[in-house]
Amino acid sequence: MDKDEIMSKNPDVLWEVIETKDILVVENRLSISVQRIKLPDGRIIDDYYQIYLPECVVVVSRNEEGRTVMLEQYQHGFGRVSVVLPAGVIEKGESPLHAAQRELLEETGYSSEEWYSFGTFPLHNNYGCGKVNFFFAANVRQIAKPTSKDLEETKIILMDEQETINAIKKGDIIAIGSITALLLSKIILNKA
Amino acid sequence: MDKDEIMSKNPDVLWEVIETKDILVVENRLSISVQRIKLPDGRIIDDYYQIYLPECVVVVSRNEEGRTVMLEQYQHGFGRVSVVLPAGVIEKGESPLHAAQRELLEETGYSSEEWYSFGTFPLHNNYGCGKVNFFFAANVRQIAKPTSKDLEETKIILMDEQETINAIKKGDIIAIGSITALLLSKIILNKA
Repeated sequence: MDKDEIMSKNPDVLWEVIETKDILVVENRLSISVQRIKLPDGRIIDDYYQIYLPECVVVVSRNEEGRTVMLEQYQHGFGRVSVVLPAGVIEKGESPLHAAQRELLEETGYSSEEWYSFGTFPLHNNYGCGKVNFFFAANVRQIAKPTSKDLEETKIILMDEQETINAIKKGDIIAIGSITALLLSKIILNKA
Repeated sequence: MDKDEIMSKNPDVLWEVIETKDILVVENRLSISVQRIKLPDGRIIDDYYQIYLPECVVVVSRNEEGRTVMLEQYQHGFGRVSVVLPAGVIEKGESPLHAAQRELLEETGYSSEEWYSFGTFPLHNNYGCGKVNFFFAANVRQIAKPTSKDLEETKIILMDEQETINAIKKGDIIAIGSITALLLSKIILNKA
């Protein structure tokens, strides 16, 4: 649906964007804009900021023994080592599914013939901060060595579902994208 | 731990921030800096961007019947109506717990004597994008009318745990903060 179509279906709740002005653009990295907004009750908001970040993918997998491929690595956003799911940025012209397949293979050497989407979500309710695409790869197996050129030093670890839950509770998994993807897979796959 | 202490305990994996330069500062809203980083292997990264957003709180609650207080509202980051947990920004000088109590009361009129922290997480692994504090409020009850001055028109709804899971699966709950908080409460409270 484009903006006009959305507005015509929900005229009473949607905010109308009167003007969008870029205030910072860093090519391929991030951009910030400020919007002039008209609320449904007629009020005007002059400075509603939006943050655009590259769209990314997060991959939950299960191998034949039901174990998920995870990475232990330093995360600069956290300033510490933690356990994360394979993830990365969608390249220009690339489909989200292809990015998921590529990131899993590059970062871990694992591959799958069976891929499922768990949906696409903006990271931040108000600012946006980029969209995250969650994917599930069934019956993964290692077909190559990792070739990732990530900046982080990385160790691959396999965890069963209970180990991932315990790691979340212990604080060893702190990436919100990884926590969300793991817990989504738990409720979707276990038909909770 | 301060930076030097962290570095001395983990000299082999941590990135050293050589320089941080603000490139955009919007008071009380957001700021962007670019860091010059030294990787553990000696490589220098000249342009590692960090996004600072106000720290916020998200509140999962249960009333006497085990139902969670949720809000149905338009979210501009999504461009649509969805169901979210009560949440908001921590004010200057305010503790995260006080912000959680204040937001729950302002947005829903509900209050609790029993509060638990589910931890604090940065929203984005690499960029930061602000920290989110997850709280759980037990045995909430409505003691007032909502007084929130939020921009969004809002309807309060009560959902039991299965209803929240179904709403996540159906795509009626799309805020990653709300999904994370609800699923964290499921694994922590149910001792999964």
